Amino acid sequence: MTTIAVLGLGAMGLPMATNLAKKFTVRGYDINPERLSLAASKGVETFTSATSTVAGADYVLLAVRNQEQLRDVLFGEEGIASAMPHGACVILTSTVGVDVAQQAAHDLKGYGLHMIDAPISGGPARAGNGDLLVVVGASRKDYDAAKEVLDTMASTLVFVGEEVGKGQALKTINQLLAGVHIAVGAEALALARKLGLDMGASLQALMGGAAASFMFGDRGPRMIDGYGEGIEAEDVDVCSRMDIFVKDMGIVAETARRVHAAIPLAATAQQLYVIGEQAGLGACDDSQVIHVLDPH
Amino acid sequence: MTTIAVLGLGAMGLPMATNLAKKFTVRGYDINPERLSLAASKGVETFTSATSTVAGADYVLLAVRNQEQLRDVLFGEEGIASAMPHGACVILTSTVGVDVAQQAAHDLKGYGLHMIDAPISGGPARAGNGDLLVVVGASRKDYDAAKEVLDTMASTLVFVGEEVGKGQALKTINQLLAGVHIAVGAEALALARKLGLDMGASLQALMGGAAASFMFGDRGPRMIDGYGEGIEAEDVDVCSRMDIFVKDMGIVAETARRVHAAIPLAATAQQLYVIGEQAGLGACDDSQVIHVLDPH
Repeated sequence: MTTIAVLGLGAMGLPMATNLAKKFTVRGYDINPERLSLAASKGVETFTSATSTVAGADYVLLAVRNQEQLRDVLFGEEGIASAMPHGACVILTSTVGVDVAQQAAHDLKGYGLHMIDAPISGGPARAGNGDLLVVVGASRKDYDAAKEVLDTMASTLVFVGEEVGKGQALKTINQLLAGVHIAVGAEALALARKLGLDMGASLQALMGGAAASFMFGDRGPRMIDGYGEGIEAEDVDVCSRMDIFVKDMGIVAETARRVHAAIPLAATAQQLYVIGEQAGLGACDDSQVIHVLDPH
Repeated sequence: MTTIAVLGLGAMGLPMATNLAKKFTVRGYDINPERLSLAASKGVETFTSATSTVAGADYVLLAVRNQEQLRDVLFGEEGIASAMPHGACVILTSTVGVDVAQQAAHDLKGYGLHMIDAPISGGPARAGNGDLLVVVGASRKDYDAAKEVLDTMASTLVFVGEEVGKGQALKTINQLLAGVHIAVGAEALALARKLGLDMGASLQALMGGAAASFMFGDRGPRMIDGYGEGIEAEDVDVCSRMDIFVKDMGIVAETARRVHAAIPLAATAQQLYVIGEQAGLGACDDSQVIHVLDPH
Protein backbone atom coordinates (compact mmCIF):
# COMPACT_ATOMS: atom_id res chain seq x y z
CA MET A 1 0.00 0.00 0.00
CA THR A 2 1.22 3.51 -0.88
CA THR A 3 2.63 5.30 2.16
CA ILE A 4 2.45 9.09 2.45
CA ALA A 5 4.32 11.12 5.06
CA VAL A 6 2.62 14.47 5.69
CA LEU A 7 4.95 17.09 7.19
CA GLY A 8 3.16 20.14 8.52
CA LEU A 9 -0.21 19.43 10.16
CA GLY A 10 -1.50 22.99 10.17
CA ALA A 11 -4.77 24.42 8.85
CA MET A 12 -4.27 22.72 5.45
CA GLY A 13 -1.89 19.84 6.27
CA LEU A 14 -4.08 18.19 8.87
CA PRO A 15 -7.28 17.97 6.78
CA MET A 16 -5.23 16.81 3.77
CA ALA A 17 -3.71 14.08 5.98
CA THR A 18 -7.06 12.85 7.30
CA ASN A 19 -8.49 12.89 3.78
CA LEU A 20 -5.56 10.93 2.32
CA ALA A 21 -5.79 8.43 5.22
CA LYS A 22 -9.13 7.24 3.79
CA LYS A 23 -7.20 5.65 0.91
CA PHE A 24 -3.51 5.46 1.83
CA THR A 25 -1.21 4.74 4.77
CA VAL A 26 -0.53 8.19 6.22
CA ARG A 27 2.18 9.13 8.72
CA GLY A 28 2.23 12.66 10.13
CA TYR A 29 4.52 15.14 11.84
CA ASP A 30 4.45 18.78 12.94
CA ILE A 31 7.02 20.80 14.90
CA ASN A 32 4.17 22.13 17.05
CA PRO A 33 3.27 19.51 19.73
CA GLU A 34 -0.32 20.81 19.93
CA ARG A 35 -0.93 20.18 16.24
CA LEU A 36 0.68 16.76 16.65
CA SER A 37 -1.71 15.75 19.46
CA LEU A 38 -4.66 17.13 17.51
CA ALA A 39 -3.63 15.04 14.49
CA ALA A 40 -3.26 11.93 16.67
CA SER A 41 -6.73 12.52 18.12
CA LYS A 42 -8.06 12.54 14.54
CA GLY A 43 -6.53 9.14 13.79
CA VAL A 44 -3.31 10.20 12.06
CA GLU A 45 -0.32 8.03 12.99
CA THR A 46 2.15 10.57 14.37
CA PHE A 47 5.90 10.50 14.97
CA THR A 48 8.35 12.49 17.06
CA SER A 49 10.60 13.73 14.25
CA ALA A 50 10.39 14.52 10.56
CA THR A 51 13.14 12.00 9.75
CA SER A 52 11.36 9.12 11.50
CA THR A 53 8.09 10.07 9.77
CA VAL A 54 9.49 9.73 6.25
CA ALA A 55 10.95 6.23 6.81
CA GLY A 56 9.47 3.93 4.18
CA ALA A 57 7.38 6.69 2.59
CA ASP A 58 6.65 6.64 -1.14
CA TYR A 59 5.56 10.27 -0.98
CA VAL A 60 6.37 13.09 1.40
CA LEU A 61 3.65 15.72 1.25
CA LEU A 62 4.93 19.09 2.47
CA ALA A 63 2.47 21.61 3.87
CA VAL A 64 4.92 24.07 5.40
CA ARG A 65 4.38 27.75 5.99
CA ASN A 66 7.11 29.39 3.91
CA GLN A 67 10.42 28.97 2.13
CA GLU A 68 12.43 29.07 5.37
CA GLN A 69 10.49 26.10 6.77
CA LEU A 70 10.83 24.33 3.42
CA ARG A 71 14.63 24.60 3.33
CA ASP A 72 14.83 23.60 6.98
CA VAL A 73 12.67 20.50 6.74
CA LEU A 74 14.47 19.31 3.59
CA PHE A 75 18.08 20.28 4.17
CA GLY A 76 18.39 21.56 7.76
CA GLU A 77 20.21 19.86 10.62
CA GLU A 78 17.50 17.22 10.84
CA GLY A 79 16.55 17.51 7.18
CA ILE A 80 14.62 14.68 5.56
CA ALA A 81 16.51 14.68 2.25
CA SER A 82 19.06 12.24 3.68
CA ALA A 83 16.36 10.19 5.45
CA MET A 84 13.90 9.60 2.57
CA PRO A 85 13.99 6.28 0.69
CA HIS A 86 15.93 6.56 -2.57
CA GLY A 87 13.59 7.34 -5.47
CA ALA A 88 10.82 8.68 -3.22
CA CYS A 89 8.94 11.83 -4.21
CA VAL A 90 8.25 15.12 -2.42
CA ILE A 91 4.86 16.69 -3.14
CA LEU A 92 5.19 20.41 -2.34
CA THR A 93 1.75 21.90 -1.63
CA SER A 94 2.98 25.19 -0.14
CA THR A 95 3.13 28.46 -2.07
CA VAL A 96 6.81 29.40 -2.10
CA GLY A 97 7.36 30.83 -5.58
CA VAL A 98 8.90 29.50 -8.79
CA ASP A 99 12.57 29.87 -7.92
CA VAL A 100 12.41 28.42 -4.42
CA ALA A 101 10.55 25.37 -5.75
CA GLN A 102 13.01 24.88 -8.60
CA GLN A 103 15.99 25.18 -6.27
CA ALA A 104 14.47 22.60 -3.91
CA ALA A 105 13.82 20.17 -6.79
CA HIS A 106 17.38 20.65 -8.03
CA ASP A 107 18.86 19.99 -4.61
CA LEU A 108 16.61 16.95 -3.99
CA LYS A 109 17.80 15.44 -7.27
CA GLY A 110 21.29 15.31 -5.77
CA TYR A 111 19.86 12.91 -3.16
CA GLY A 112 18.16 10.75 -5.81
CA LEU A 113 14.76 12.20 -4.89
CA HIS A 114 11.91 13.49 -7.10
CA MET A 115 9.68 16.50 -6.56
CA ILE A 116 6.20 17.44 -7.70
CA ASP A 117 5.30 21.12 -7.50
CA ALA A 118 1.64 21.08 -6.47
CA PRO A 119 0.40 24.24 -4.77
CA ILE A 120 -3.16 24.06 -3.52
CA SER A 121 -6.09 26.44 -3.21
CA GLY A 122 -9.41 26.11 -1.44
CA GLY A 123 -9.17 26.28 2.37
CA PRO A 124 -9.36 23.73 5.20
CA ALA A 125 -12.92 22.44 4.64
CA ARG A 126 -12.25 21.63 1.00
CA ALA A 127 -8.89 20.10 1.92
CA GLY A 128 -10.70 17.66 4.22
CA ASN A 129 -13.08 16.64 1.45
CA GLY A 130 -10.47 16.16 -1.28
CA ASP A 131 -12.07 19.14 -2.98
CA LEU A 132 -8.99 21.31 -3.59
CA LEU A 133 -7.76 23.07 -6.71
CA VAL A 134 -4.27 21.63 -7.27
CA VAL A 135 -2.02 23.09 -9.98
CA VAL A 136 0.89 20.86 -10.88
CA GLY A 137 4.32 21.32 -12.42
CA ALA A 138 6.29 18.07 -12.66
CA SER A 139 7.78 15.62 -15.14
CA ARG A 140 5.03 13.69 -16.88
CA LYS A 141 6.40 10.47 -15.37
CA ASP A 142 6.29 11.79 -11.79
CA TYR A 143 2.83 13.24 -12.39
CA ASP A 144 1.43 9.99 -13.79
CA ALA A 145 2.91 7.99 -10.92
CA ALA A 146 1.41 10.33 -8.30
CA LYS A 147 -1.93 10.83 -10.07
CA GLU A 148 -3.93 8.67 -7.64
CA VAL A 149 -2.61 10.65 -4.67
CA LEU A 150 -3.22 14.01 -6.37
CA ASP A 151 -6.72 12.96 -7.47
CA THR A 152 -7.54 12.11 -3.87
CA MET A 153 -6.61 15.66 -2.82
CA ALA A 154 -8.23 17.54 -5.69
CA SER A 155 -11.62 18.07 -7.27
CA THR A 156 -9.84 20.15 -9.92
CA LEU A 157 -6.39 18.95 -10.91
CA VAL A 158 -4.56 21.12 -13.46
CA PHE A 159 -1.36 19.83 -15.03
CA VAL A 160 0.26 23.16 -15.88
CA GLY A 161 3.49 21.93 -17.44
CA GLU A 162 6.31 19.42 -17.40
CA GLU A 163 8.58 21.44 -15.19
CA VAL A 164 8.74 22.06 -11.45
CA GLY A 165 7.82 25.74 -10.98
CA LYS A 166 4.90 25.79 -13.43
CA GLY A 167 2.46 25.06 -10.60
CA GLN A 168 4.03 27.81 -8.49
CA ALA A 169 3.84 30.19 -11.46
CA LEU A 170 0.10 29.68 -11.91
CA LYS A 171 -0.49 29.84 -8.14
CA THR A 172 1.45 33.13 -8.07
CA ILE A 173 -0.90 34.57 -10.71
CA ASN A 174 -3.86 33.26 -8.71
CA GLN A 175 -2.63 35.04 -5.57
CA LEU A 176 -1.94 38.25 -7.51
CA LEU A 177 -5.59 38.37 -8.57
CA ALA A 178 -7.01 37.17 -5.25
CA GLY A 179 -4.90 39.62 -3.22
CA VAL A 180 -5.90 42.60 -5.37
CA HIS A 181 -9.57 41.55 -5.47
CA ILE A 182 -9.75 41.46 -1.66
CA ALA A 183 -8.04 44.84 -1.25
CA VAL A 184 -10.15 46.56 -3.92
CA GLY A 185 -13.28 45.06 -2.34
CA ALA A 186 -12.23 46.82 0.86
CA GLU A 187 -11.70 50.09 -1.03
CA ALA A 188 -15.15 49.74 -2.58
CA LEU A 189 -17.03 49.04 0.65
CA ALA A 190 -15.18 51.73 2.61
CA LEU A 191 -15.98 54.30 -0.09
CA ALA A 192 -19.61 53.12 -0.26
CA ARG A 193 -19.95 53.73 3.48
CA LYS A 194 -18.46 57.21 3.21
CA LEU A 195 -20.95 58.00 0.44
CA GLY A 196 -23.83 57.06 2.74
CA LEU A 197 -24.66 53.78 1.01
CA ASP A 198 -25.72 50.67 2.90
CA MET A 199 -22.72 48.35 2.61
CA GLY A 200 -24.69 45.10 2.65
CA ALA A 201 -27.21 46.23 0.03
CA SER A 202 -24.37 47.62 -2.11
CA LEU A 203 -22.45 44.34 -1.91
CA GLN A 204 -25.53 42.42 -2.99
CA ALA A 205 -26.33 44.73 -5.90
CA LEU A 206 -22.71 44.86 -7.09
CA MET A 207 -22.30 41.06 -6.98
CA GLY A 208 -25.13 40.82 -9.53
CA GLY A 209 -23.20 42.67 -12.22
CA ALA A 210 -19.90 43.58 -13.83
CA ALA A 211 -18.26 44.38 -10.46
CA ALA A 212 -18.51 40.80 -9.17
CA SER A 213 -15.53 38.76 -8.07
CA PHE A 214 -15.26 35.54 -6.12
CA MET A 215 -13.28 37.35 -3.41
CA PHE A 216 -15.71 40.28 -3.12
CA GLY A 217 -18.56 37.82 -2.55
CA ASP A 218 -16.53 35.74 -0.11
CA ARG A 219 -14.71 38.41 1.93
CA GLY A 220 -17.23 41.25 1.58
CA PRO A 221 -19.59 40.01 4.33
CA ARG A 222 -16.68 39.67 6.80
CA MET A 223 -15.48 43.18 5.90
CA ILE A 224 -18.94 44.45 6.83
CA ASP A 225 -18.87 42.33 10.03
CA GLY A 226 -15.80 44.36 11.04
CA TYR A 227 -17.96 47.50 11.24
CA GLY A 228 -20.26 45.99 13.87
CA GLU A 229 -20.89 47.97 17.07
CA GLY A 230 -18.03 47.28 19.50
CA ILE A 231 -16.42 44.82 17.08
CA GLU A 232 -12.65 44.88 16.56
CA ALA A 233 -10.81 43.38 13.58
CA GLU A 234 -9.68 40.63 15.98
CA ASP A 235 -13.31 39.63 16.65
CA VAL A 236 -14.07 38.74 13.03
CA ASP A 237 -13.92 35.02 12.12
CA VAL A 238 -10.51 34.11 10.72
CA CYS A 239 -10.97 32.09 7.53
CA SER A 240 -7.59 33.02 6.05
CA ARG A 241 -4.92 35.02 7.89
CA MET A 242 -3.76 38.36 6.55
CA ASP A 243 -0.08 37.45 6.94
CA ILE A 244 -0.52 34.74 4.30
CA PHE A 245 -1.06 37.57 1.81
CA VAL A 246 1.97 39.41 3.19
CA LYS A 247 3.94 36.32 2.19
CA ASP A 248 2.13 35.63 -1.10
CA MET A 249 2.09 39.21 -2.41
CA GLY A 250 5.78 39.27 -1.54
CA ILE A 251 6.21 36.21 -3.78
CA VAL A 252 4.20 37.95 -6.51
CA ALA A 253 6.41 41.05 -6.28
CA GLU A 254 9.66 39.05 -6.28
CA THR A 255 8.46 36.89 -9.20
CA ALA A 256 7.52 39.97 -11.24
CA ARG A 257 10.83 41.64 -10.41
CA ARG A 258 12.80 38.69 -11.77
CA VAL A 259 11.04 38.75 -15.17
CA HIS A 260 10.77 42.56 -15.31
CA ALA A 261 6.95 42.55 -15.33
CA ALA A 262 5.00 45.67 -14.33
CA ILE A 263 2.48 44.95 -11.54
CA PRO A 264 1.43 48.35 -10.21
CA LEU A 265 -1.85 47.10 -8.72
CA ALA A 266 -0.39 44.02 -7.05
CA ALA A 267 2.52 46.08 -5.70
CA THR A 268 0.03 48.54 -4.19
CA ALA A 269 -2.05 45.76 -2.66
CA GLN A 270 1.11 44.20 -1.24
CA GLN A 271 1.83 47.42 0.66
CA LEU A 272 -1.68 47.41 2.14
CA TYR A 273 -1.17 43.91 3.57
CA VAL A 274 2.27 44.86 4.93
CA ILE A 275 0.77 47.97 6.57
CA GLY A 276 -2.00 45.77 7.98
CA GLU A 277 0.51 43.35 9.47
CA GLN A 278 2.50 46.23 10.98
CA ALA A 279 -0.74 47.55 12.50
CA GLY A 280 -1.09 44.23 14.33
CA LEU A 281 -3.61 42.62 11.99
CA GLY A 282 -1.39 39.78 10.71
CA ALA A 283 -3.32 37.06 12.51
CA CYS A 284 -6.71 38.61 11.62
CA ASP A 285 -8.85 37.53 8.69
CA ASP A 286 -7.47 39.00 5.45
CA SER A 287 -10.80 40.80 4.93
CA GLN A 288 -9.74 43.14 7.75
CA VAL A 289 -7.38 44.90 5.34
CA ILE A 290 -10.40 47.23 5.21
CA HIS A 291 -9.14 48.59 8.56
CA VAL A 292 -6.00 49.82 6.80
CA LEU A 293 -8.11 51.87 4.36
CA ASP A 294 -10.81 52.89 6.82
CA PRO A 295 -9.65 52.62 10.46
CA HIS A 296 -13.19 52.89 11.78
CA MET B 1 -49.85 57.54 -23.78
CA THR B 2 -46.59 58.28 -21.96
CA THR B 3 -44.14 60.17 -24.17
CA ILE B 4 -40.39 59.81 -23.71
CA ALA B 5 -37.80 62.04 -25.38
CA VAL B 6 -34.43 60.30 -25.66
CA LEU B 7 -31.50 62.70 -26.01
CA GLY B 8 -28.27 61.03 -27.05
CA LEU B 9 -28.69 58.15 -29.52
CA GLY B 10 -25.22 56.65 -29.08
CA ALA B 11 -24.18 53.10 -28.28
CA MET B 12 -26.56 52.97 -25.30
CA GLY B 13 -29.16 55.65 -26.10
CA LEU B 14 -30.28 54.19 -29.43
CA PRO B 15 -30.99 50.64 -28.21
CA MET B 16 -32.74 52.08 -25.13
CA ALA B 17 -34.89 54.22 -27.43
CA THR B 18 -35.87 51.32 -29.70
CA ASN B 19 -36.63 49.16 -26.67
CA LEU B 20 -38.78 51.85 -25.02
CA ALA B 21 -40.62 52.42 -28.34
CA LYS B 22 -42.17 48.95 -27.98
CA LYS B 23 -44.29 50.32 -25.11
CA PHE B 24 -44.21 54.11 -25.21
CA THR B 25 -44.22 57.04 -27.64
CA VAL B 26 -40.52 57.78 -28.17
CA ARG B 27 -39.00 60.90 -29.73
CA GLY B 28 -35.26 61.01 -30.35
CA TYR B 29 -32.40 63.43 -30.93
CA ASP B 30 -28.63 63.36 -31.27
CA ILE B 31 -26.16 66.12 -32.12
CA ASN B 32 -24.46 63.72 -34.54
CA PRO B 33 -26.48 63.61 -37.85
CA GLU B 34 -25.25 60.07 -38.59
CA ARG B 35 -26.65 58.72 -35.33
CA LEU B 36 -29.87 60.62 -36.04
CA SER B 37 -30.33 58.97 -39.48
CA LEU B 38 -29.46 55.58 -38.01
CA ALA B 39 -32.11 56.09 -35.32
CA ALA B 40 -34.67 57.13 -37.94
CA SER B 41 -33.87 54.02 -39.98
CA LYS B 42 -34.63 51.96 -36.86
CA GLY B 43 -38.08 53.50 -36.50
CA VAL B 44 -37.36 56.20 -33.92
CA GLU B 45 -39.23 59.47 -34.57
CA THR B 46 -36.39 61.98 -34.82
CA PHE B 47 -36.24 65.77 -34.56
CA THR B 48 -33.80 68.49 -35.60
CA SER B 49 -33.13 69.99 -32.16
CA ALA B 50 -33.16 68.93 -28.53
CA THR B 51 -35.73 71.60 -27.66
CA SER B 52 -38.22 70.44 -30.30
CA THR B 53 -37.74 66.81 -29.20
CA VAL B 54 -38.80 67.46 -25.61
CA ALA B 55 -42.05 69.23 -26.52
CA GLY B 56 -44.90 67.38 -24.82
CA ALA B 57 -42.60 64.80 -23.24
CA ASP B 58 -43.47 63.30 -19.84
CA TYR B 59 -39.91 62.00 -19.50
CA VAL B 60 -36.62 63.10 -21.00
CA LEU B 61 -34.14 60.24 -20.93
CA LEU B 62 -30.57 61.53 -21.13
CA ALA B 63 -27.85 59.26 -22.49
CA VAL B 64 -25.06 61.80 -22.87
CA ARG B 65 -21.35 61.12 -22.81
CA ASN B 66 -20.15 63.23 -19.87
CA GLN B 67 -20.87 66.11 -17.52
CA GLU B 68 -20.03 68.76 -20.14
CA GLN B 69 -22.68 67.39 -22.53
CA LEU B 70 -25.11 67.11 -19.61
CA ARG B 71 -24.78 70.77 -18.62
CA ASP B 72 -24.95 71.83 -22.25
CA VAL B 73 -28.09 69.89 -23.16
CA LEU B 74 -29.89 71.04 -19.99
CA PHE B 75 -28.75 74.62 -19.54
CA GLY B 76 -26.72 75.59 -22.63
CA GLU B 77 -27.70 78.09 -25.30
CA GLU B 78 -30.31 75.70 -26.66
CA GLY B 79 -30.84 73.97 -23.33
CA ILE B 80 -34.00 71.96 -22.78
CA ALA B 81 -34.66 73.09 -19.19
CA SER B 82 -36.68 76.03 -20.47
CA ALA B 83 -38.39 73.93 -23.20
CA MET B 84 -39.62 70.96 -21.14
CA PRO B 85 -43.24 70.86 -19.99
CA HIS B 86 -43.62 72.03 -16.40
CA GLY B 87 -43.55 69.06 -14.01
CA ALA B 88 -41.83 66.75 -16.51
CA CYS B 89 -39.01 64.51 -15.35
CA VAL B 90 -35.42 63.98 -16.52
CA ILE B 91 -34.11 60.40 -16.28
CA LEU B 92 -30.33 60.64 -16.21
CA THR B 93 -28.77 57.34 -17.34
CA SER B 94 -25.21 58.63 -17.82
CA THR B 95 -22.43 58.13 -15.27
CA VAL B 96 -21.46 61.66 -14.22
CA GLY B 97 -20.80 61.34 -10.48
CA VAL B 98 -22.77 62.25 -7.37
CA ASP B 99 -22.14 65.98 -7.29
CA VAL B 100 -22.79 66.66 -10.95
CA ALA B 101 -26.10 64.78 -10.74
CA GLN B 102 -27.14 66.61 -7.57
CA GLN B 103 -26.27 69.98 -9.05
CA ALA B 104 -28.32 69.20 -12.17
CA ALA B 105 -31.32 68.10 -10.06
CA HIS B 106 -31.05 71.28 -7.98
CA ASP B 107 -30.91 73.50 -11.06
CA LEU B 108 -33.80 71.66 -12.78
CA LYS B 109 -35.92 72.20 -9.69
CA GLY B 110 -35.67 75.94 -10.36
CA TYR B 111 -37.49 75.28 -13.65
CA GLY B 112 -40.20 73.18 -11.95
CA LEU B 113 -38.67 69.97 -13.29
CA HIS B 114 -37.94 66.65 -11.59
CA MET B 115 -34.94 64.39 -11.97
CA ILE B 116 -34.34 60.67 -11.49
CA ASP B 117 -30.72 59.59 -11.12
CA ALA B 118 -30.63 56.25 -12.94
CA PRO B 119 -27.18 55.19 -14.19
CA ILE B 120 -27.17 51.99 -16.20
CA SER B 121 -24.85 49.05 -16.68
CA GLY B 122 -24.87 46.22 -19.20
CA GLY B 123 -23.87 47.27 -22.71
CA PRO B 124 -25.76 47.89 -25.98
CA ALA B 125 -27.20 44.38 -26.52
CA ARG B 126 -28.77 44.30 -23.07
CA ALA B 127 -30.00 47.89 -23.51
CA GLY B 128 -31.93 46.77 -26.61
CA ASN B 129 -33.55 43.92 -24.72
CA GLY B 130 -34.57 45.91 -21.63
CA ASP B 131 -32.06 43.78 -19.76
CA LEU B 132 -29.99 46.50 -18.03
CA LEU B 133 -28.93 46.90 -14.42
CA VAL B 134 -30.39 50.28 -13.40
CA VAL B 135 -29.50 51.79 -10.00
CA VAL B 136 -31.80 54.59 -8.95
CA GLY B 137 -31.61 57.56 -6.64
CA ALA B 138 -34.81 59.64 -6.61
CA SER B 139 -37.69 60.74 -4.42
CA ARG B 140 -40.01 57.81 -3.78
CA LYS B 141 -42.78 59.70 -5.57
CA ASP B 142 -40.75 60.28 -8.74
CA TYR B 143 -39.53 56.68 -8.64
CA ASP B 144 -43.02 55.23 -8.28
CA ALA B 145 -44.34 57.42 -11.10
CA ALA B 146 -41.53 56.36 -13.46
CA LYS B 147 -41.49 52.71 -12.42
CA GLU B 148 -43.10 51.42 -15.63
CA VAL B 149 -40.50 53.22 -17.74
CA LEU B 150 -37.61 52.02 -15.57
CA ASP B 151 -38.94 48.45 -15.53
CA THR B 152 -39.01 48.48 -19.32
CA MET B 153 -35.30 49.36 -19.38
CA ALA B 154 -34.12 47.04 -16.63
CA SER B 155 -34.01 43.37 -15.79
CA THR B 156 -32.50 44.39 -12.43
CA LEU B 157 -33.81 47.60 -10.96
CA VAL B 158 -32.22 48.69 -7.66
CA PHE B 159 -33.75 51.57 -5.72
CA VAL B 160 -30.64 52.74 -3.86
CA GLY B 161 -32.13 55.63 -1.91
CA GLU B 162 -34.51 58.56 -1.81
CA GLU B 163 -32.00 61.10 -3.00
CA VAL B 164 -30.59 62.02 -6.40
CA GLY B 165 -26.93 60.98 -6.30
CA LYS B 166 -27.45 57.60 -4.62
CA GLY B 167 -27.62 55.89 -8.00
CA GLN B 168 -24.44 57.68 -9.09
CA ALA B 169 -22.78 56.71 -5.81
CA LEU B 170 -23.45 53.00 -6.32
CA LYS B 171 -22.48 53.21 -9.99
CA THR B 172 -19.22 54.89 -8.96
CA ILE B 173 -18.43 51.95 -6.65
CA ASN B 174 -19.33 49.58 -9.49
CA GLN B 175 -16.88 51.33 -11.83
CA LEU B 176 -14.16 51.39 -9.16
CA LEU B 177 -14.34 47.59 -8.93
CA ALA B 178 -14.80 46.98 -12.65
CA GLY B 179 -11.93 49.29 -13.61
CA VAL B 180 -9.52 47.69 -11.16
CA HIS B 181 -10.63 44.16 -12.09
CA ILE B 182 -9.89 44.78 -15.78
CA ALA B 183 -6.47 46.32 -15.08
CA VAL B 184 -5.42 43.59 -12.64
CA GLY B 185 -6.57 40.96 -15.14
CA ALA B 186 -4.14 42.55 -17.59
CA GLU B 187 -1.37 42.44 -14.98
CA ALA B 188 -2.10 38.79 -14.34
CA LEU B 189 -2.10 37.66 -17.98
CA ALA B 190 0.97 39.71 -18.87
CA LEU B 191 2.86 38.19 -15.93
CA ALA B 192 1.62 34.69 -16.82
CA ARG B 193 3.04 35.09 -20.33
CA LYS B 194 6.41 36.27 -19.02
CA LEU B 195 6.52 33.21 -16.75
CA GLY B 196 6.06 30.94 -19.76
CA LEU B 197 2.46 29.98 -18.99
CA ASP B 198 -0.18 29.55 -21.69
CA MET B 199 -2.46 32.57 -21.25
CA GLY B 200 -5.67 30.86 -22.39
CA ALA B 201 -5.18 27.79 -20.21
CA SER B 202 -4.24 30.03 -17.26
CA LEU B 203 -7.36 32.15 -17.73
CA GLN B 204 -9.52 29.05 -17.78
CA ALA B 205 -7.91 27.50 -14.69
CA LEU B 206 -8.00 30.78 -12.74
CA MET B 207 -11.67 31.44 -13.55
CA GLY B 208 -12.51 28.16 -11.80
CA GLY B 209 -11.26 29.37 -8.43
CA ALA B 210 -10.68 32.19 -5.98
CA ALA B 211 -9.14 34.44 -8.66
CA ALA B 212 -12.35 34.70 -10.69
CA SER B 213 -14.04 37.98 -11.52
CA PHE B 214 -16.74 38.87 -14.01
CA MET B 215 -14.35 41.25 -15.78
CA PHE B 216 -11.48 38.75 -15.95
CA GLY B 217 -13.79 36.25 -17.64
CA ASP B 218 -15.26 38.87 -19.96
CA ARG B 219 -12.17 40.91 -20.94
CA GLY B 220 -9.52 38.18 -20.55
CA PRO B 221 -10.16 36.56 -23.96
CA ARG B 222 -9.90 39.93 -25.75
CA MET B 223 -6.65 40.68 -23.88
CA ILE B 224 -5.27 37.41 -25.26
CA ASP B 225 -6.64 38.29 -28.74
CA GLY B 226 -4.39 41.37 -28.60
CA TYR B 227 -1.32 39.09 -28.59
CA GLY B 228 -2.23 37.49 -31.93
CA GLU B 229 0.38 37.41 -34.71
CA GLY B 230 0.29 40.75 -36.55
CA ILE B 231 -2.62 41.98 -34.39
CA GLU B 232 -2.60 45.55 -33.07
CA ALA B 233 -4.69 46.83 -30.15
CA GLU B 234 -6.84 48.61 -32.76
CA ASP B 235 -7.74 45.28 -34.39
CA VAL B 236 -9.40 43.83 -31.30
CA ASP B 237 -13.23 44.04 -31.19
CA VAL B 238 -14.37 47.12 -29.29
CA CYS B 239 -17.05 46.14 -26.79
CA SER B 240 -16.40 49.07 -24.44
CA ARG B 241 -13.98 51.92 -25.17
CA MET B 242 -11.00 52.56 -22.93
CA ASP B 243 -11.74 56.29 -22.68
CA ILE B 244 -14.98 55.47 -20.84
CA PHE B 245 -12.77 54.25 -17.99
CA VAL B 246 -10.62 57.37 -18.25
CA LYS B 247 -13.83 59.29 -17.50
CA ASP B 248 -15.24 56.86 -14.93
CA MET B 249 -12.04 56.32 -12.94
CA GLY B 250 -11.72 60.10 -12.93
CA ILE B 251 -15.18 60.26 -11.34
CA VAL B 252 -14.11 57.58 -8.83
CA ALA B 253 -11.00 59.60 -7.90
CA GLU B 254 -12.90 62.89 -7.60
CA THR B 255 -15.67 61.25 -5.54
CA ALA B 256 -13.13 59.70 -3.16
CA ARG B 257 -11.26 62.98 -2.85
CA ARG B 258 -14.39 64.81 -1.76
CA VAL B 259 -15.11 62.38 1.10
CA HIS B 260 -11.42 61.84 1.99
CA ALA B 261 -11.51 58.12 1.14
CA ALA B 262 -8.28 56.23 0.42
CA ILE B 263 -8.42 54.40 -2.93
CA PRO B 264 -4.83 53.42 -3.71
CA LEU B 265 -5.78 50.63 -6.12
CA ALA B 266 -8.40 52.60 -8.05
CA ALA B 267 -6.05 55.58 -8.27
CA THR B 268 -3.35 53.32 -9.73
CA ALA B 269 -5.77 51.78 -12.24
CA GLN B 270 -6.92 55.29 -13.21
CA GLN B 271 -3.36 56.17 -14.19
CA LEU B 272 -3.10 53.05 -16.37
CA TYR B 273 -6.19 54.09 -18.36
CA VAL B 274 -4.91 57.65 -18.70
CA ILE B 275 -1.54 56.34 -19.94
CA GLY B 276 -3.42 54.07 -22.35
CA GLU B 277 -5.42 57.01 -23.73
CA GLN B 278 -2.25 59.07 -24.11
CA ALA B 279 -0.69 56.16 -26.00
CA GLY B 280 -3.53 56.43 -28.52
CA LEU B 281 -5.66 53.57 -27.19
CA GLY B 282 -8.67 55.67 -26.09
CA ALA B 283 -10.97 54.32 -28.80
CA CYS B 284 -9.71 50.73 -28.37
CA ASP B 285 -11.44 48.11 -26.27
CA ASP B 286 -10.68 48.66 -22.58
CA SER B 287 -9.11 45.19 -22.44
CA GLN B 288 -6.19 46.66 -24.39
CA VAL B 289 -4.96 48.34 -21.21
CA ILE B 290 -2.76 45.22 -21.24
CA HIS B 291 -0.68 47.07 -23.88
CA VAL B 292 0.20 49.66 -21.23
CA LEU B 293 1.62 46.97 -18.95
CA ASP B 294 3.11 44.79 -21.67
CA PRO B 295 3.66 46.70 -24.94
CA HIS B 296 4.16 43.50 -26.93
